[in-house]
Amino acid sequence: MCSQHVDLIIEGCTIIQVVPPEVIMDGTIAVKDTRIVFVGRRNQAANFTAEKRINANGKAALPGLINCHTHVAMTLFRGLAEDKPLEKWLKEDIWPLEAKLKPDDIYAGALLGCVEMIKCGVTCFADMYFHEEAVAKAVKESGLRAVLAEGIIEAGNIALGEKMLERSISFAEKFRDYADGRVKTMLGPHAAYSCSPGLLIKVKEAANQFGLGIHIHLAEDKKISKQLKTSYNQSETEFLNNLGIFNEQTLAAHCIDLSLKDLRILADKGVNVAYVPVSNMKLGLGVARVKEMLDLKVNVALGTDGPASNNTLDIFETIKFGALLQKHAYRSPTVIRANEVLRMATINGAQALGLEKEIGSLEVGKKADIILIDLSAAHIRPIHDIYAALVYSVRGSDVDTVIVDGKILMENRQLKYLDEEKIIANAEKHAFRLISNNY
Amino acid sequence: MCSQHVDLIIEGCTIIQVVPPEVIMDGTIAVKDTRIVFVGRRNQAANFTAEKRINANGKAALPGLINCHTHVAMTLFRGLAEDKPLEKWLKEDIWPLEAKLKPDDIYAGALLGCVEMIKCGVTCFADMYFHEEAVAKAVKESGLRAVLAEGIIEAGNIALGEKMLERSISFAEKFRDYADGRVKTMLGPHAAYSCSPGLLIKVKEAANQFGLGIHIHLAEDKKISKQLKTSYNQSETEFLNNLGIFNEQTLAAHCIDLSLKDLRILADKGVNVAYVPVSNMKLGLGVARVKEMLDLKVNVALGTDGPASNNTLDIFETIKFGALLQKHAYRSPTVIRANEVLRMATINGAQALGLEKEIGSLEVGKKADIILIDLSAAHIRPIHDIYAALVYSVRGSDVDTVIVDGKILMENRQLKYLDEEKIIANAEKHAFRLISNNY
Repeated sequence: MCSQHVDLIIEGCTIIQVVPPEVIMDGTIAVKDTRIVFVGRRNQAANFTAEKRINANGKAALPGLINCHTHVAMTLFRGLAEDKPLEKWLKEDIWPLEAKLKPDDIYAGALLGCVEMIKCGVTCFADMYFHEEAVAKAVKESGLRAVLAEGIIEAGNIALGEKMLERSISFAEKFRDYADGRVKTMLGPHAAYSCSPGLLIKVKEAANQFGLGIHIHLAEDKKISKQLKTSYNQSETEFLNNLGIFNEQTLAAHCIDLSLKDLRILADKGVNVAYVPVSNMKLGLGVARVKEMLDLKVNVALGTDGPASNNTLDIFETIKFGALLQKHAYRSPTVIRANEVLRMATINGAQALGLEKEIGSLEVGKKADIILIDLSAAHIRPIHDIYAALVYSVRGSDVDTVIVDGKILMENRQLKYLDEEKIIANAEKHAFRLISNNY
Repeated sequence: MCSQHVDLIIEGCTIIQVVPPEVIMDGTIAVKDTRIVFVGRRNQAANFTAEKRINANGKAALPGLINCHTHVAMTLFRGLAEDKPLEKWLKEDIWPLEAKLKPDDIYAGALLGCVEMIKCGVTCFADMYFHEEAVAKAVKESGLRAVLAEGIIEAGNIALGEKMLERSISFAEKFRDYADGRVKTMLGPHAAYSCSPGLLIKVKEAANQFGLGIHIHLAEDKKISKQLKTSYNQSETEFLNNLGIFNEQTLAAHCIDLSLKDLRILADKGVNVAYVPVSNMKLGLGVARVKEMLDLKVNVALGTDGPASNNTLDIFETIKFGALLQKHAYRSPTVIRANEVLRMATINGAQALGLEKEIGSLEVGKKADIILIDLSAAHIRPIHDIYAALVYSVRGSDVDTVIVDGKILMENRQLKYLDEEKIIANAEKHAFRLISNNY
């Protein structure tokens, strides 16, 4: 048997492939260039030689986690104006600050968010905000993968809506394969209540024309949903469906308190749901009916929302909150098993972003987006059930190593390419300048 | 001015005193023997000389966190038999295992729990389980503070109930000032449904006779509460109240879905509530009406429950879950502010254990139970609001230094007295032996 030379061998770990749903003990993963070329038991991997070997004994290997809904640059506003109602918080605090945001603020905040995500095992995220070219730049520099959408908010101003749509299209076209293909793009109409039917139809036409997905907020706030129902005599979901917005390339964030009819629409149209439990709880907005969504075969992924309403970008935290909030909502401990919620954070996230052939599982041929979890800490042991350990005990800070596109971004919790302190200091400079009155 | 020599100076930190509700920037804390002798701004502390100085620049100093309800030795069962209904989980998995537990199993599991708690900033915990003398031994060795109760479960067997009550009293008497006074004791009648009225009256009489508090489960499971209501034609709370169980020395864990009448009873009698959000969510049992409890001036503290139903002992996690679950339950982001939930984890916990004169705040004269939180990580920055940072962003693993009774148990995340690896390995040996069929 001849040997095969690869770039990276990770060996000795417990491998959670996700797809297929196997757990491989004492496993080996081999990476060549940007892709996984071998996943299996270590004793079947004797023929590999490698540029670099990682001894991952006592660690679990997982597909990188996917954060399917955030506004990453909102790290700048983390902890600002706490414990307020959504509308007041937006109108009094966030919107006036957002109006002041310049691309270099966004870049500084986004890069801080990228550092945070690498450090807690998120390898890919879906973002919707302003000046997304600055987010793209931060993603490129960080080595992460992302699906970015320039937000479109019309808010009664038709000319503004048109301009933002143009910007969203032009961003999506320009950056659709940016950073060696690690950046993909979508269109970002903010929500049914902040865009008119006319504009939403144009968004849909542009999405079809350019083959782009749509990232949108759906049913985040009952009060707004009710107003919409009064105006249009349809639920928010029916309204968007009747405009033809929904298909398999739609990523709908929140989806709280939908009716069974609404849930069936999402299922029929193959809409992807980003379940955002931490932010929804923190803002007191309610809970997505995820158990029923899964029963109807809706693809449900996980999102953190922006750090101003969470206040982290930590998908491990969202995994635990997400599982427990469903058990709470349905008053049943059997709802959403540990392995199901891990699927939401990985392969379901990949599918929601149209990347299920590239990422979301540890399979040969897929991109090498891999995280290693250190299982040695007291709060994880003993391990009677590896899925329970990962979902209910592991914290973001147990992530030891992060690999994206075959490149090691963090090893032994040390970032390889980013200067953490400098990035934090720069983000704080921008954040404190933004909230100073004389800016 | 003459100088004062102390054992320990912690300087340069942001001090969250909790009581009074001040935040001191660039502060100093001085410790002599087991107590705090100075808290204030660094520039007012120039006269101190010290055996040891800790430069706590960039860190927050808080009173050690208090976990008011756990069964710490259940670390052994962490992740065992997941996603099952409470009754099935208890009957099929936990109770048969518990029947096999010997003191050395309990010691091994409890010591693992102590390691976990030190590492996430818990300095004091309230425990109820079996063979509590083994827990006391682990507490002594760990340097932590604890209030321990030997559990009493009658379950229809009067002789067994009597025997367990005797054991609970004898444990409480023997260990009431163990480990240099760091161990205090209570009586531990399991719950209204597992002890008969006759036994509960004897528990009350013993509590009065020996001046002991009572740690009990209250209204954890609606189904059981309903059965009780059928048997006694009273709510669980009314039933216990009519037996005379309730006073300011009662620690009632869970207290889910109580009626307003029940809440008023708790308020009238000064009963202390251990709010246990993570376990309650995970088992799908419902939520304590904490907002209303606080409105009625009920003292509400926080608990994790045993690690088999959480699956950690991490009070920082419970702080975030606890705050967000209330906002969710009341559908209002203004319910339970960040500083309120920090009080629950500190001074309210102290009060619940009758220790409010000794611990729970950073005040001169109190025991030096202090934790330092490293605020440098990306997921915490920028800090616009220190309370929001501590409640919504900080993780247990951001705890850097832990001091109990003036003694440094952990510094720079390194345990000073306990061998973490050995303790984990020993706990696993016991855990895996317990679940093996031939044991």
